[in-house]
Amino acid sequence: MSLFRRLGRFVFGRSMSNQQLGEEKLNVFWGMPILSSDSISSVAYAVEEILLVLVPVIGMASFIWMPRIALAIIALMLILVFSYRHVVDAYPNGGGAYVVAKENLGTIYSLIAGASLSVDYVLTVAVSIAAATAAITSAFPALFSHRVGISLVIIFLLAVGNLRGIRESARVFSLPTYAFILTIVILVGSGLVRYLNGGPAIIPATMTPSAGTGLGAISFFLVVRAFASGCSAVTGVEAVSNAVPNFQAPAARQAKTVYLWLAVAIVICFGGVALLAFLYHIVPDPRQTVITQLTLAVFGPGAMLYLLATTTALILALAANTAYSGFPTLLSVIAQDGFVPRQLSLRGHRLNFNNGIVLLSLAAALLIIVFQADTHLLISLYAVGVFTSFTLSQAGMVLHWRKERSKGWVLKGLINGLGAVTTGVAVTVIGITKFTEGAWIVLVVVPVIIAIMMRIKNHYLSVAEQLDISNDTLARIDLRTTHTHHVIVPIDSINAMVIKALRYARSLTPHVEAFHVEVYEGESDKLLRKWAMLDTDIPLIVKYSPYREVVNLLTQYIDSEEHASQPGDIITVLLPQFFVSHRWEMALHNNTSLFIANAMLKKRNVVVSIIPFYLEDLKVYRFSKNNKPLVQ
Amino acid sequence: MSLFRRLGRFVFGRSMSNQQLGEEKLNVFWGMPILSSDSISSVAYAVEEILLVLVPVIGMASFIWMPRIALAIIALMLILVFSYRHVVDAYPNGGGAYVVAKENLGTIYSLIAGASLSVDYVLTVAVSIAAATAAITSAFPALFSHRVGISLVIIFLLAVGNLRGIRESARVFSLPTYAFILTIVILVGSGLVRYLNGGPAIIPATMTPSAGTGLGAISFFLVVRAFASGCSAVTGVEAVSNAVPNFQAPAARQAKTVYLWLAVAIVICFGGVALLAFLYHIVPDPRQTVITQLTLAVFGPGAMLYLLATTTALILALAANTAYSGFPTLLSVIAQDGFVPRQLSLRGHRLNFNNGIVLLSLAAALLIIVFQADTHLLISLYAVGVFTSFTLSQAGMVLHWRKERSKGWVLKGLINGLGAVTTGVAVTVIGITKFTEGAWIVLVVVPVIIAIMMRIKNHYLSVAEQLDISNDTLARIDLRTTHTHHVIVPIDSINAMVIKALRYARSLTPHVEAFHVEVYEGESDKLLRKWAMLDTDIPLIVKYSPYREVVNLLTQYIDSEEHASQPGDIITVLLPQFFVSHRWEMALHNNTSLFIANAMLKKRNVVVSIIPFYLEDLKVYRFSKNNKPLVQ
Repeated sequence: MSLFRRLGRFVFGRSMSNQQLGEEKLNVFWGMPILSSDSISSVAYAVEEILLVLVPVIGMASFIWMPRIALAIIALMLILVFSYRHVVDAYPNGGGAYVVAKENLGTIYSLIAGASLSVDYVLTVAVSIAAATAAITSAFPALFSHRVGISLVIIFLLAVGNLRGIRESARVFSLPTYAFILTIVILVGSGLVRYLNGGPAIIPATMTPSAGTGLGAISFFLVVRAFASGCSAVTGVEAVSNAVPNFQAPAARQAKTVYLWLAVAIVICFGGVALLAFLYHIVPDPRQTVITQLTLAVFGPGAMLYLLATTTALILALAANTAYSGFPTLLSVIAQDGFVPRQLSLRGHRLNFNNGIVLLSLAAALLIIVFQADTHLLISLYAVGVFTSFTLSQAGMVLHWRKERSKGWVLKGLINGLGAVTTGVAVTVIGITKFTEGAWIVLVVVPVIIAIMMRIKNHYLSVAEQLDISNDTLARIDLRTTHTHHVIVPIDSINAMVIKALRYARSLTPHVEAFHVEVYEGESDKLLRKWAMLDTDIPLIVKYSPYREVVNLLTQYIDSEEHASQPGDIITVLLPQFFVSHRWEMALHNNTSLFIANAMLKKRNVVVSIIPFYLEDLKVYRFSKNNKPLVQ
Repeated sequence: MSLFRRLGRFVFGRSMSNQQLGEEKLNVFWGMPILSSDSISSVAYAVEEILLVLVPVIGMASFIWMPRIALAIIALMLILVFSYRHVVDAYPNGGGAYVVAKENLGTIYSLIAGASLSVDYVLTVAVSIAAATAAITSAFPALFSHRVGISLVIIFLLAVGNLRGIRESARVFSLPTYAFILTIVILVGSGLVRYLNGGPAIIPATMTPSAGTGLGAISFFLVVRAFASGCSAVTGVEAVSNAVPNFQAPAARQAKTVYLWLAVAIVICFGGVALLAFLYHIVPDPRQTVITQLTLAVFGPGAMLYLLATTTALILALAANTAYSGFPTLLSVIAQDGFVPRQLSLRGHRLNFNNGIVLLSLAAALLIIVFQADTHLLISLYAVGVFTSFTLSQAGMVLHWRKERSKGWVLKGLINGLGAVTTGVAVTVIGITKFTEGAWIVLVVVPVIIAIMMRIKNHYLSVAEQLDISNDTLARIDLRTTHTHHVIVPIDSINAMVIKALRYARSLTPHVEAFHVEVYEGESDKLLRKWAMLDTDIPLIVKYSPYREVVNLLTQYIDSEEHASQPGDIITVLLPQFFVSHRWEMALHNNTSLFIANAMLKKRNVVVSIIPFYLEDLKVYRFSKNNKPLVQ
């Protein structure tokens, strides 16, 4: 085993057989943190996003509207969770919005959902890692100039961790999620106790209420925009329904339980932070996040501040892991339909979807480099994709209920319809208000991805049409052929390897020809003399090429009338090629045969055969005065 | 023709046939500048190098010793030139020190000479281009921080120019050499006239005679060291003798004439500059070269200063071109002996030695990057290689005369012996005095190159021993064989491509087997049903691989007793592979066949045949609701 392979095994772990697939699957306890860190981590910025829209316009009046909007978002989240629990029931093989849209709305809608979700997964990785890096660099400002490098290292570590396999990833990544939930619960609990005991909030020096400048009137558009901004709290809900096949049996029930846990976690964390921000009248500050301000107000500066900063940074980095679980699974589902390369549906040697993991890492790394790990620029691209897929999924579910008409279908359809309308409004609002900030990129990229997907599907359909054989035809096939075989052996000189090839060719058919290209005039004289000594009836064809090219001459010769083949005859080009034990030794030779093999396969409808000749390892020679070897 | 090819043709020129080789050769007028710019350009620093050794130790007494040392160097140069004219006579096929050492001293000495010369050529390029860049950046100080980039651009331009072909290079590069000689002649002539007319030297403000600090005693070692430093004037003399085959017929006579012209040019330029420096008592100054000081003293600041700076920079850059002519030719000679990869002896489509040109450019670029285009660091590595090859060449010529005993052999032998001793002393002095400054690198690299060369030769000898067939054996060879043919066809499914392959296999031999690897249990059921419909006597072997690998299973199967082959039987693995018109489409498939072909060739003594199946261009489909295509 080579050093390289050993290293690969050390980093990625041993190969696993297909039987081990069951062992690799998730249960609720490990599955909840791995698939919901994206949703839960958005608590770190969702309340702030709402206040950032409201406070500059309506000032302290924001604290009348913010709780209502937070409640609306919690309501939307519950609608989504319960709707997706139905999706899991209806589509236990995963696929989420893609499958729902495909089954109920049609191909083009499923491609919109698939492309939107793919873009969203890549952005989840980029945004979360940029935000985690920002958390690190605000703790250690000296690292700020290395933020792109730090982000890329985190992506690399996530990729390696995920290439090792599903369950191990879950274990590595589950504890920080629970730690984050726990610290938020402690923060909310302590903050409530302190408030109810009437203890005054600790207002640090940096907090100067600047909210009084907001003088604008409340408007429907403002509320909707604040609502849309806060909707970042519900991104990632899709992940669980996409990943149903990753759960232990009974997979659907486990996934539905995860949704319940997720709903509880978000209600407590998001609702709790929103409540505290309302009670303490927190005003967004560019230098300190809402969570940091709350921690300072409840605990003052100290250990709790650093603990929350750490768990926030960790869960943001780990939110990216949601995408590492969801994206490859989604791609494998789309790959089975033939809209993305089939290789994306193949499991790697650790039973995960290696190709999808690598693709996701590269795309996210590209975004990090292009946007220089700037969270604010990336976040503008973020929500369009999510809400597009939400809308399609909900709309698809409405049609699903209408088609199925199972018990309570009207109510379910109404709930899904409400979700579709709400998320549809949200995606429109986000698309318009954030268009110039970067949403346009998504609106360009998604159609391009869809076009590529259709091109790929077209290719697979075209290939299948040309290769497939119906059962009727199959039964009538006769494998016998009456065509003549011709074998052409391109040679450079006469040596043991060529003799082996000629012998092989001769045993196949009487129609064998040797073919030589003369590069310098007279260069082939020696070959012709030796050929005469061989005393064979195999003709040696010599062609002169002043331009030192072989492939074209060979093609021309095969096509020419000079060659005795009839249309329909089978022509095999037999190439002798020697192989040596070290790769550097191969570089010492022209390896013309391998070159001809490649070129011939692309040029002409002939069979290309390579007959190998294995050379043994080096013997050690001593050199005399005139380069004559003295064997040791 | 693809865009890429068109671009290549535009940059490198059209392909040339072998008949055009004669037209590409050099005559004296074009050959002199191309092969001697290295020698002539050293005038730019050789006198300065002598003074830099002497002045700090013995002060104004340097001007007693400098002319003597200059005369000694001119004498050495004349010895070398006349010796090399004999070399050209004795070895009209080129190769210089390498060939002389091989014929007269033995293999190991020829390898020392070859490796030393190779290193020297690379250093010639690196040193000359670094110095030319320094000339440019001292004219435009703002460019100093881009010196590595500028050097690399010059290397790139030289490489492209040389890849275009020999004669065109000569024309491009000959005029600056003549311009440099002319400006030096004008400088020397005007300086002499001014001196003889008793006109006082114009001493610019920057010239403050600081030579009075030299108080040391003159010593033998000091003189030898100054001599060795000045020897940089004679580097490059080897180039002409290496490049004899590049001359028009009669090549030897043309090359000898070039040596005479070269000797005259160096005597005038080097001798003239040394004389002026003596007459005007020029003291080396880190801020101004000796040539610049002389120009200021004779002409004062003005056009002549910029003209000389320009021609100096140009000839230094073009000195590198000597190596572009000499190095690939040397390598092609060594390649014919099998000590470097054979490909280095092949002419490219413009009839030059492309591989050698590319290799030289890459090595020089590496040195430029590692040493950050610093001339002073590079110059310390420079002379060891040249003088090693001089010594070997001269010593070889002594043995040559003793062996040949032609007319006047004693005198010729004495002259060559004197050259061998002088250059031998020089290389020892340089090796010792400049060891810590970088000469050690050459003393490490040369033995490493020699070891690699011997390893390569060993390989070629080993290959030849295993491939070569004597004429006796040849006459006794019988190409008939009685062994049985077996054909194994690995398949994924039954389709038109597989049917074509089975038909081909069946026409070769009755012993055909289809081979399938099942990745998931039960996955092959459909294949087995279809196989039954085909109703053939070809057996279908199915193997189960939970680790999703095909090659090992195939190898195991061939090796197993289960397979019906007898020892000595011929086994062909026939791989159906389809080809599509666009490269991106190939990326949509696993191309397992090509993968198996590669792996099988390395693993097992079987013939690997690829039967191509060409797929047509895409048809355009429309998609219905459930991915079912509607053909347009």
